[in-house]
Amino acid sequence: MKAGVLYSGGKDSALMGVILKRMGLEVEFVTINFGVYESWKPAFQSASALGFKHKVLRINKKILEESVKKILEDGFPNDGINYIHHEVLEIMAKEYSIIADGTRRDDRIPKLKDNEVRSFEDRNQVEYVNLQGFGHKTIENLSSNLFHVKKEESNRENNSDYEVEVRCLIDQLKGEGTSRSIFPSHFQSRVIGWKENKCD
Amino acid sequence: MKAGVLYSGGKDSALMGVILKRMGLEVEFVTINFGVYESWKPAFQSASALGFKHKVLRINKKILEESVKKILEDGFPNDGINYIHHEVLEIMAKEYSIIADGTRRDDRIPKLKDNEVRSFEDRNQVEYVNLQGFGHKTIENLSSNLFHVKKEESNRENNSDYEVEVRCLIDQLKGEGTSRSIFPSHFQSRVIGWKENKCD
Repeated sequence: MKAGVLYSGGKDSALMGVILKRMGLEVEFVTINFGVYESWKPAFQSASALGFKHKVLRINKKILEESVKKILEDGFPNDGINYIHHEVLEIMAKEYSIIADGTRRDDRIPKLKDNEVRSFEDRNQVEYVNLQGFGHKTIENLSSNLFHVKKEESNRENNSDYEVEVRCLIDQLKGEGTSRSIFPSHFQSRVIGWKENKCD
Repeated sequence: MKAGVLYSGGKDSALMGVILKRMGLEVEFVTINFGVYESWKPAFQSASALGFKHKVLRINKKILEESVKKILEDGFPNDGINYIHHEVLEIMAKEYSIIADGTRRDDRIPKLKDNEVRSFEDRNQVEYVNLQGFGHKTIENLSSNLFHVKKEESNRENNSDYEVEVRCLIDQLKGEGTSRSIFPSHFQSRVIGWKENKCD
């Protein structure tokens, strides 16, 4: 059984992938790209360093445009980012029978509600898995045992989240720097290799 | 870091333990006993077959009595079983810094609500982990790859759930067989050994 794990290069999605691989599944890391900016590269480097197969899934730019429209109306990224994630999962369901992401217990966005998970699985006859049973402290501890992690201020060269292309498109449409007022700057942790890998 | 995984001998809690072990934690399987019936034995045999350290945690019978009181009042086991689980977790928090159980996404009882998880972790300065991100189909598939599983009608000789001692105490108090009208008969899957164990 092949699992597609949505992969940003961060420790949550890395841990999700390692769990499924160590439970015996064939795992492919998947990074989404809308063709606006080649933001998949950091995730690809990270996946390669961990020895995972990696795929860039090219997605219709209309979904990104719709998301940016919402975000500009809202002045706030949450609903637009959540919209992308929901659309992406539906597309993943056409390629994989098991779909996973690194959503953890204390994440708020993007996230599927319980009834959305049931609907997603039933409509598409797939299985959906995430890290909802794990809190940030546990993920921090497990991943710092497993991975070398680089912590740095997030920018478009070190980050493969949906946010990168959303911001690029906002800046293209509304002028360079506009997206800074909508997205707060934040630090992120990128997985750059194994510390300990006894199972592979 | 040592994790205590509440262990009934079933595939959910077995999978939870294997995940944490394969993520590098020291894992102890823990089965609760109130001293009414030696119902920990099936879980001990199962844990031994998987090569996990196993511990029987003896708990004050008052908690069982309180649960039985609720269940007899309700004519229905859910709140009483949930009560035991919450009390058990508080006791586990005195012995382990990471506490896990096999609660999965589609379980209803026993289960901690989101705010109960936060409160449990914060009050006790522990981490709590479960299989909330996994549905029954995924757990079925993963565990059937990993484990030899025996499916049989649940009884007091093949089952280490809280239910066994609850039923014993009900039958002691109200007459042999009384508990049958409160607890429906059901099939259960007991893990009896490894199919595939490439990580240990």
